[in-house]
Amino acid sequence: MWSNEEIKEYLKSSLNENRYNHCIGVSKTSKKLAKLYGANEEKAELAGLTHDCAKYMESEKILQILKDNGEEIDVVVQHWPPLMHGYAGEYVAREVFGIEDEEVLSAIKYHVTGRENMTLLEKIVFIADFIEPGRDFPGVEKARTLAYEDLDEAIIFAFDSTISFVMKSGNLLHTKTIDSRNYLLLNRKNK
Amino acid sequence: MWSNEEIKEYLKSSLNENRYNHCIGVSKTSKKLAKLYGANEEKAELAGLTHDCAKYMESEKILQILKDNGEEIDVVVQHWPPLMHGYAGEYVAREVFGIEDEEVLSAIKYHVTGRENMTLLEKIVFIADFIEPGRDFPGVEKARTLAYEDLDEAIIFAFDSTISFVMKSGNLLHTKTIDSRNYLLLNRKNK
Repeated sequence: MWSNEEIKEYLKSSLNENRYNHCIGVSKTSKKLAKLYGANEEKAELAGLTHDCAKYMESEKILQILKDNGEEIDVVVQHWPPLMHGYAGEYVAREVFGIEDEEVLSAIKYHVTGRENMTLLEKIVFIADFIEPGRDFPGVEKARTLAYEDLDEAIIFAFDSTISFVMKSGNLLHTKTIDSRNYLLLNRKNK
Repeated sequence: MWSNEEIKEYLKSSLNENRYNHCIGVSKTSKKLAKLYGANEEKAELAGLTHDCAKYMESEKILQILKDNGEEIDVVVQHWPPLMHGYAGEYVAREVFGIEDEEVLSAIKYHVTGRENMTLLEKIVFIADFIEPGRDFPGVEKARTLAYEDLDEAIIFAFDSTISFVMKSGNLLHTKTIDSRNYLLLNRKNK
């Protein structure tokens, strides 16, 4: 398995400076949240660092990876393959970086769309991606506060913000995001 | 098959006054839109009149109808069966009113959630339900204008408004709505 330093070199060469800094931010924020919520800090740091490793992969290659792994390619993905850069990132993390830890791999895989019944590490990386210090958009402060108070509430807030943003842009919504949001709401209501 | 007058008597007895007036409004608006867009006016009138015939059906009975008809009962429907009053309404229209016309039946069935590749009559009843004269909410005027200019744009607008409203209420979103919206957007982009 590659060391964090080797992975950083890879990221530096395949991402632009902003995106690289974002990865460092997500890595640090994930570690902090892991400490707070009792997750494995090292795994959080690694998953945060690598989550966007396939951010700029070509659409054709992303589709090939999905196909090879038997993943569903619905109309939304067909139209906009980069939405699945988490799935492609999981592949790179496994095949290139040699990461075998399933918790780390699934946190990379589901950091864009979420999924029903997310693991603690998936939740941490998902929200760290939304709130890392480099992020600047209306509502980010509220998301930051929520993230350190109630992880599920923070993720519901992030989903709602993302859905609103996507709708206003006139873009497609992925049903996995809707399923994840529904799952969290039902879980909250059953508390 | 029941006459429109017989159906009105049924609706008067099973709905409250506001909801009954809403049905009359949707019926008239559907007929008007059918004329504009070249759909069958009589079918539009009938589908509009009957669309909410199962609006107040008990959840248990709705679930039974879905089950008997082999429809999917996902977590959202389990949590909130009244969302499927269109599906239950189609059953009442068929079994009680004796309506056999598939175009009319599907317009009743999908008036709440929409679906991918909606028929012209489904679109008409869906948007008539949103804009009939009794409706009063922020954005309804814009929806009314759009409905007489571009049916698909009006429906996308209605979906966006509904999704926003449901999100703000902290309620669950049905993926069928998302699929319908995605379908319309993709169709628009391919124009």
